[in-house]
Amino acid sequence: MNAIIINIGNELLNGHTINTNAAYIAQKLSGIGINVIETIVITDDEQAIVNTISNAYSKADIAICTGGLGPTTDDITKKAICQYFNVSLVFDELIWQHVQQLFAKRNINISDKNRSQAEIPHGATTLTNKIGTAPGLVLTKEHFTFIALPGVPFEMQHLIDEEVLPYLIQHHKLIPPFTKTLLFTDISESLLAEKIDTWDKKLREHDIQIAYLPQPGIIKLKLFSPILTAKQNTVIDDFIRFVQEKLNDFLAYVGDVPFAKLIGELLIENQATLATAESCTGGYIAHLLTSIPGSSAYFKGSIIAYSNEVKINSLNVPSITINQYGAVSQAVVETMAKEVLKKFNTDYAIAVSGIAGPDGGSYEKPVGTTWIAVASHNEIRSQKFIFTGDRLRNIERASISALNMLRRFVK
Amino acid sequence: MNAIIINIGNELLNGHTINTNAAYIAQKLSGIGINVIETIVITDDEQAIVNTISNAYSKADIAICTGGLGPTTDDITKKAICQYFNVSLVFDELIWQHVQQLFAKRNINISDKNRSQAEIPHGATTLTNKIGTAPGLVLTKEHFTFIALPGVPFEMQHLIDEEVLPYLIQHHKLIPPFTKTLLFTDISESLLAEKIDTWDKKLREHDIQIAYLPQPGIIKLKLFSPILTAKQNTVIDDFIRFVQEKLNDFLAYVGDVPFAKLIGELLIENQATLATAESCTGGYIAHLLTSIPGSSAYFKGSIIAYSNEVKINSLNVPSITINQYGAVSQAVVETMAKEVLKKFNTDYAIAVSGIAGPDGGSYEKPVGTTWIAVASHNEIRSQKFIFTGDRLRNIERASISALNMLRRFVK
Repeated sequence: MNAIIINIGNELLNGHTINTNAAYIAQKLSGIGINVIETIVITDDEQAIVNTISNAYSKADIAICTGGLGPTTDDITKKAICQYFNVSLVFDELIWQHVQQLFAKRNINISDKNRSQAEIPHGATTLTNKIGTAPGLVLTKEHFTFIALPGVPFEMQHLIDEEVLPYLIQHHKLIPPFTKTLLFTDISESLLAEKIDTWDKKLREHDIQIAYLPQPGIIKLKLFSPILTAKQNTVIDDFIRFVQEKLNDFLAYVGDVPFAKLIGELLIENQATLATAESCTGGYIAHLLTSIPGSSAYFKGSIIAYSNEVKINSLNVPSITINQYGAVSQAVVETMAKEVLKKFNTDYAIAVSGIAGPDGGSYEKPVGTTWIAVASHNEIRSQKFIFTGDRLRNIERASISALNMLRRFVK
Repeated sequence: MNAIIINIGNELLNGHTINTNAAYIAQKLSGIGINVIETIVITDDEQAIVNTISNAYSKADIAICTGGLGPTTDDITKKAICQYFNVSLVFDELIWQHVQQLFAKRNINISDKNRSQAEIPHGATTLTNKIGTAPGLVLTKEHFTFIALPGVPFEMQHLIDEEVLPYLIQHHKLIPPFTKTLLFTDISESLLAEKIDTWDKKLREHDIQIAYLPQPGIIKLKLFSPILTAKQNTVIDDFIRFVQEKLNDFLAYVGDVPFAKLIGELLIENQATLATAESCTGGYIAHLLTSIPGSSAYFKGSIIAYSNEVKINSLNVPSITINQYGAVSQAVVETMAKEVLKKFNTDYAIAVSGIAGPDGGSYEKPVGTTWIAVASHNEIRSQKFIFTGDRLRNIERASISALNMLRRFVK
């Protein structure tokens, strides 16, 4: 089955908003075996929307459209849907009740404009939006299924996961394709490709697609096949055995999970707790860890020592150490790690101090220079990195590298 | 002038890579007065590329295409260009020299595959790519200018900034358009739309486009016009005066800056320093603040008190208070704020404690319940919020709400 993704919105067209919706939907559709053949972003213009739906009808089985379902004047997707499917808008009392309840819960006055959110194209199936006012809409015409969703990412994601995927699986009797993901660290994409060159060819010969997906500090290797034959299964098992034997030093995980979740699982397995002391990462490691539900089972907290004063007063870093070696030094991160471990009474601690940029670099310590320490009650390890990205990229890289050092340390 | 952006690549279609190229190009084109009317992502297929160029020719003055200019076998953009423009590939000696020099500089052996990078469609103008092997290509046909760029983001960005924009400005005598952004908080998109309904119509009557760009906790209102007439200028001034008089309570800023930067500017203006004590936001407020270069001038650090133990031991929250009122309570956040203010010796402090979800909610305190306090040495304010998103969304909303409470407090 082929799908086209249509994203409506001037904020996407003029580049003020990066189109993360398209990637989210495409990944989820791939996950149930639907092939995205085109993604198109168009303006809030009724005729443009009608033409794009018409084009999707001629090329694809499914079109998923986001945006333009809100109450403001530029939201005209529903009008375009009515024009294309030749139906009119009807007021839906149940949806109106839902909209009113949502406003009441948020303690916000409801405006008359919101009444329009309860109007839906006649004959459309509605998909319940538990966390927002605009429901999803499904309309069909011969072979073609058209689904309209709100453009707000978290509402769209909720509807895709809870409503759209189950709907498509049920109505089109889809079989999820086979995928297997391997997470690698401490290896470049090209070196990994070189090391598995023979296997790459062999997997492709057996119609198993293989994709390299680099992320800051991590490479995801994704294997994919629409169905999985017994022969393919054997080849994949052999490949994973090869990786575990020959590339075990670089293999972080067999499976596709956020890196912080992998760390959480490892800590739970070891019944261990963690604290962080962060300077240049400014709370980003703590944020990654606490993004995972249930992280309170192992993460106790952090001291963000952004100023030297906090390093000195709250982490007992001697000011003489800072004067002698600088705030970005082995001595400083090791003290930070040991102190937060003691202070928060945890089994492990991570500490980071670096120069994220764009300013603050020197000849000896260029922008990107970062010291990371991991500590337990018996042992401490520290390492220097030099990252070469911009400020945000350096913060991300330092955070993933710190979690990866902890992973190796705990193992 | 109208433009269409074409991005070629399966990694974009299947959602493994988020299409940041389209947003980058669109922002830059908008900045010189070119209107992006469509963005389309297609697969590495010669006929699909030819059809898409042909469609762009019929709708737009300019098409900018990224991807498929590299030396690997699936890079077939140049073949498609030759087919559409009915020309053949010719070997360009100067480009070949550039490719060879680049490989020598990187100390990598050059392969015969790379010779193909010096082949360009006959009649194309080449745009020098100082940092990569594939040059940009410009071809024209009647009204239509077609530009092909490599898909690697930093090469594409370099070519857009250094070559494409100067080329387009020179050849089409372009004038940058007028834009003005207003940031609002504490108001829903629909209520804002209602309150400026009359002005919305008036601005549109004067050919000033108006766009609502909602982000977690913030609404950006963007005004846009290709040129700014004296009459339009007066209307916009009158509108901003209206907003400042009637909606001043919701207007956070006239201008377009990240919210954390606005807070930073306010603190610098007041020569004030800030610390945070975070529970449910888990470091995200600190991360937003430290994402801004130069934030060390006002942000000293944070205590992430994710566990009650850290709240008790590092922030002096009495355990009896937690037992009596719960960790998500006014008494707890107020103590957290006062203690971190004292401990880190700052002028202001923010404290947050809440239930981000998905678990941990109760009838009395449902998921999303969040207490936020802001404190100075003389005063403390606290407020309860109930956010209704998923975990990450609640963390984002709580963080922006906390920064916004501080903004009101400092003012």
